[in-house]
Amino acid sequence: MPVGLKAPGKLIPINGIRLASVHSGIKTNSEISDLVLVEISESARLAAVFTTNKFCAAPVTVAKEHLANNQSSRFLLINSGNANAGTGKRGYELALQSCQKVAELTSLPVTSVLPFSTGVIAAELPLDKIAQALPELMDKLDSNAWLDAATGIMTTDTQPKAISREIEINGSKVVITGIAKGSGMIKPDMATMLSFIATDALIDQDQLQALLVEAVDCSFNAITVDGDTSTNDACVLIATGASGVEVSSDNRHYKQALVKVFQLLAQSIIRDGEGATKFVEIEVNTAASIADAEEVAYTVAHSPLVKTALFASDPNWGRILAAVGRTKIDGLDISLVDLYLGDTCLLKKGLPDESYTEAKGQAEMAKEEIKIRIDLGLGDFLSRVWTSDLSYDYVKINAEYRS
Amino acid sequence: MPVGLKAPGKLIPINGIRLASVHSGIKTNSEISDLVLVEISESARLAAVFTTNKFCAAPVTVAKEHLANNQSSRFLLINSGNANAGTGKRGYELALQSCQKVAELTSLPVTSVLPFSTGVIAAELPLDKIAQALPELMDKLDSNAWLDAATGIMTTDTQPKAISREIEINGSKVVITGIAKGSGMIKPDMATMLSFIATDALIDQDQLQALLVEAVDCSFNAITVDGDTSTNDACVLIATGASGVEVSSDNRHYKQALVKVFQLLAQSIIRDGEGATKFVEIEVNTAASIADAEEVAYTVAHSPLVKTALFASDPNWGRILAAVGRTKIDGLDISLVDLYLGDTCLLKKGLPDESYTEAKGQAEMAKEEIKIRIDLGLGDFLSRVWTSDLSYDYVKINAEYRS
Repeated sequence: MPVGLKAPGKLIPINGIRLASVHSGIKTNSEISDLVLVEISESARLAAVFTTNKFCAAPVTVAKEHLANNQSSRFLLINSGNANAGTGKRGYELALQSCQKVAELTSLPVTSVLPFSTGVIAAELPLDKIAQALPELMDKLDSNAWLDAATGIMTTDTQPKAISREIEINGSKVVITGIAKGSGMIKPDMATMLSFIATDALIDQDQLQALLVEAVDCSFNAITVDGDTSTNDACVLIATGASGVEVSSDNRHYKQALVKVFQLLAQSIIRDGEGATKFVEIEVNTAASIADAEEVAYTVAHSPLVKTALFASDPNWGRILAAVGRTKIDGLDISLVDLYLGDTCLLKKGLPDESYTEAKGQAEMAKEEIKIRIDLGLGDFLSRVWTSDLSYDYVKINAEYRS
Repeated sequence: MPVGLKAPGKLIPINGIRLASVHSGIKTNSEISDLVLVEISESARLAAVFTTNKFCAAPVTVAKEHLANNQSSRFLLINSGNANAGTGKRGYELALQSCQKVAELTSLPVTSVLPFSTGVIAAELPLDKIAQALPELMDKLDSNAWLDAATGIMTTDTQPKAISREIEINGSKVVITGIAKGSGMIKPDMATMLSFIATDALIDQDQLQALLVEAVDCSFNAITVDGDTSTNDACVLIATGASGVEVSSDNRHYKQALVKVFQLLAQSIIRDGEGATKFVEIEVNTAASIADAEEVAYTVAHSPLVKTALFASDPNWGRILAAVGRTKIDGLDISLVDLYLGDTCLLKKGLPDESYTEAKGQAEMAKEEIKIRIDLGLGDFLSRVWTSDLSYDYVKINAEYRS
């Protein structure tokens, strides 16, 4: 039961990018595609960030090595249904060989192919099925196949996640189109978050990487279901340059549009979180530093007590306050703290606001989209994270998976 | 449904300690006691540790101030049903006045009385009811009332938690008796962990505090249900010296007995955790430091994915490994990691053990008491923490409380 998750609107092709999606047999259901190929033009630039989990999966290791050894990434090979994680040396070899199969068909060096996997862990990647499906994938490559690709990378997602934005820069059109998958990084074992975003802007390699890191920080790195991270998470940003419009990383207009694409994709993962019944924004304001603001926001977002109260639509500010209180930030003082649910003030300077009533709090908590705002009164910094509640279905889905 | 929680056995009185418990009217059910008084002999020494939550409750502030200003604590006044938390200046005054009432009846300075509260938050402490009950409490003081006291401090606990140990030191008997309350630090809003432990050993003040800190570190600080901490948590250790047997903090025989009392009390809180269906020990071995071992142990213990797998009796080692992988400890290398469930080896040097079968793993996970052992292969340090699973009932209890 996704929370306010809409079907993708019109997706605008990006010149320099072609995509294809097929059922290769990795997943048992032959109706469902499970292998996606993305072709990238020779002049494009690509930046990527990967999971910080130290036990990263084989495709993450291979993709990082290929990026380190080759400036020109020409293909992304993405499979769903098998994470190729927890598979040791054999998994590494299979990830590498899957790239090799693409390289053979295209006469490119193997390092120009980047592999991505998502699905069940500790199962051997079926290289033969992938190899057999590649010719069909090559034939099908099409600049209009973004929605097919978004569907092909799904695992437990209930809907494909994709978005486009078109903006004008100095009178010229620039397009950004992206897809993502993930439904909470929590399933199946672990559900990976993958996202591939492309733009036809012309962006220098260093600036592209800077833009990616900045956009990820306030989007995919600002969503959390349960604090668990996947071994396979990856986010790729490609700038084909086909529009000829040069964009630098300090172009605010472009950056806003890019960040919006990243945030909407990231939020769609939370909206599609398993068992989610609420979409929750936690904003921590007036912190002494961004790190402090983030620590408070994440502590509240991860508190099972806060999350069950959100599920119950219970305006239980004691739980929020207790979560704030157990953070280790300097100078924390309850007599400086204001707490809001939506526009309703619960606490002012640490004490129940005079105008607050339980009925007002309950009205805010009954909403499907809830905003918790915590003002620390310690400085000028802010952090926003997005999360979901903790429901019976969360336990059910995560307890019953595999059984 | 407590997990392997037994009723307290025989409780041995401690010379120098008398206790009493009554129903004062703080709780609505008149069958249930809600106010406990503990009288401490003049020559006794007392050490205490309190919650690290920065938004600590009024009684914690008052108790800390009294300890700082008076070396001789003579009474503990403990109420259940009202936490006197989130109550600001007024709550502080009421906590102080409740001590004053005891002081007036006993002609002692107010600083010789320490207050402790547990129960609902943001409600005014009913000082009149407490004052009215004090004469009866004074009359009832009895060295054999340990079980009554254990019952009087309960909130959502399904059973009183108490234990005694008698040991011989240089041919003389020394006794340790303690009580505790708490059922997961998770309810009601927050459920406080309180524990009061006394011994008739003669222990120097500094050494008593050192013993307390050491015992708490490997007991109450090594249990976790959900990572949330209460605003009211406190643990008190009293040495009356009545046995005349001098004990120093490096007496290993005594320390072992003391730590065992602390651990059994702490574990009884986990066994009585709301919604708990499993009692889980997580042992992290061969870490490069104790801090690293603790970080790994807590990350696994707090992972909702691991906890739901425990509830489902699913030997899902991918989730355990992913939790280990997202810790920030130095040198973490999957090819050094061994993983055990009970005596069953799941992973050896990062790869599934050859003798491992899913059936073996399931047999271990089906047990009510589960031990997860993680060997990091990085050094000589160890940490053990105790936790429970994440069940439907956990969500139910915490979502439905107050509604």
